[in-house]
Formats: sequence, C-alpha cells, structure tokens
Amino acid sequence: MKPEEGPIEESKKLRVSRGISILDLVLRIIAIFGTLGSAVAMGTTDETLPFSTQALIFQAQYDDIPTFRFFVIANAIVCGYLAISLPMAIYHVIRTRAAKSRALLIFLDTIMLAVLTAGASAAAAVVYLAHKGNASANWLAICQQYQNFCQRITGSLIGSFGAVLILILLIPLSGLILSRQR
Amino acid sequence: MKPEEGPIEESKKLRVSRGISILDLVLRIIAIFGTLGSAVAMGTTDETLPFSTQALIFQAQYDDIPTFRFFVIANAIVCGYLAISLPMAIYHVIRTRAAKSRALLIFLDTIMLAVLTAGASAAAAVVYLAHKGNASANWLAICQQYQNFCQRITGSLIGSFGAVLILILLIPLSGLILSRQR
Repeated sequence: MKPEEGPIEESKKLRVSRGISILDLVLRIIAIFGTLGSAVAMGTTDETLPFSTQALIFQAQYDDIPTFRFFVIANAIVCGYLAISLPMAIYHVIRTRAAKSRALLIFLDTIMLAVLTAGASAAAAVVYLAHKGNASANWLAICQQYQNFCQRITGSLIGSFGAVLILILLIPLSGLILSRQR
Repeated sequence: MKPEEGPIEESKKLRVSRGISILDLVLRIIAIFGTLGSAVAMGTTDETLPFSTQALIFQAQYDDIPTFRFFVIANAIVCGYLAISLPMAIYHVIRTRAAKSRALLIFLDTIMLAVLTAGASAAAAVVYLAHKGNASANWLAICQQYQNFCQRITGSLIGSFGAVLILILLIPLSGLILSRQR
C-alpha cells in the first residue's frame, strides 16, 4: 500500500499533467498542418514537358502512380482525424484526470500512426525508385525527365513524416500521463 | 473524489489486468515468429532463370532492391526488440500494478510499430510495382519473368503485416490497463 499523498504533491502532479496535455494539443495542431500540406502538395502535382505536342503529350501526374493516390488518401484521413481529436485534446487540458478518454485516444492514435506511416513509406519507396531507378529490374529513373514533378513529390513527403514523428510522441505522452495518475 | 473501492472489486480489477497482461505476452511471442519468418523468407529469396548461361546470368535476388534490404533489417530489429521485451511482459503478468514500466513499453512499442510499418509498406509498394509495373513511368512488371521470386517476396509480407496488426493491439492494451488502475 502506498502512503496517501499530500495535497501539495497532488496539485504539482496535476500541473505537470496539464502541461503535457497542452503540449499534446499544440503538437496535434502542427500535425494537422503537416498532413494537410502533404496531401495538397502531392494532390496538385503534375508536370507537362515543354516538347509535348497536341498529338503526343508528355505529362506526369501524381495519380499515374497508385501509391501516390494512397499517400494523399492516408494524409487526408489522418488530417481529418486529428481535427476531430482536437476537442478531446482540449477536454484533457481542462479535465486532466480523465483516464478512459485518454486510453481511447491512444487506441485511435495508434491506428492513425500505422495508416500514415504506411502511406508515407510506400510513397517514399516509389520516390526513391523515381530518383535512382533500379538496374536489376530495368526500371529507369524518371526524375531525369520530370524534374519539377520529382521535386514536388519529394517535398510533399516532409510534412507527412513530420506528422509521423509527432504521432510517435503523442502516444507515449498519453501513456505517461496515465501512468502518473496512479 | 471517488469513493474508496472495496477489496472484492479491487481484486476483480487485478484479475482482468492480469488476463490482459497474459494476452500481451502471447501476442508478443506470435509477433516474434511473424517478423522472424518475414526476415528469413525475404532474406533467402533468389531465383536464377533456367535459360541462364555461364556468360549471361538471369538472376533476381532480394538485395538487388534496397527497399527489400530495409524490409529485412526492419523485421530483424523488431524481432530482436520483441524478444528483449518478453521478460518485461512476464514481469507485468506477475506485478500487474506496475505503471512506469508499462509507460516505457508503450513508448518503445510505438517506435517499433513505426519502424515495422515503414519497412512492410515500402516493400509492399515495390512488390506491387513488381506485379503490376507502371505504364506512365515505363516500369515493366518483372513478375512475368521471375515468378518464384515474386511469390516469395509477396508471401514474406504476410508475417510482417501480421506483426504490425499485433503491435497496433499491444499499445492500446497497455494504455487500457494503465487507465483501469486509477
């Protein structure tokens, strides 16, 4: 049996938990912008080469490659989820001792981490192939022709991987608060 | 202020927590075999086509494609981590009320979930290209030539994605136990 804690120690514990809850809220808002930026940057990417004619068009679009379509969808889903989770995050700042809703948030955050990591890594694997190609499989590096296209798709990965890092932080932070509440 | 709980309710709570801890342990052991199987299946894949001659060898190996090398490394890391985490999982079955070590496990599990999902999804994106190719990028489907190779690399994804699903379960389960301990 643990000895009963004094009211001073208890209120200090609550203050730290509140601080972590505010950090959680701020990180969520940053991650919303990261995933939104990635989805928009990838979703608006296309390039038409200057020597295209009316009969023969040399054009690269993000949705030529199904993996990039999955990337946009994954980022949109996670962005939407994070926006919906904001009220819950605000509730946790106010009611620092809430436990069940935090456990629910760990569950949902974990699923979203998996979805976003899957989308970002799959896209990164294809972007890598676009840059380097693969001699054994006879896949040529398409970035030599479509330079702007490649810059855009590479850049759009940044926001997504940033949001992955934030989600990796958010989940243990919720766990930390729960473990301190004992 | 919550009223003090009776000893009967308290012991029932502990029994449920112990049940979840045992489930956690069993799932970890299954995930070890999943990641181990994936790493070995991918790491031993190569195929030499029957019409190869001494001068000209038609061969496909998993490490021709860097993404597959990353897949093997990611699976090996997560497999090793899961093996190391077993004593901690056993400790949680015995000391059901442990909180700090559970929060640590949530942190480490989350990182491993991200590593494994990244490896599995990146490999899946390349396997998809190997099967379907991509007309816009002029990447041919290599599976038409290397059928055995493709079957092996596709099959090796199963254990990995199984382990991803298990990790998605393990993290909220730890959170659930922590939230019930209040």
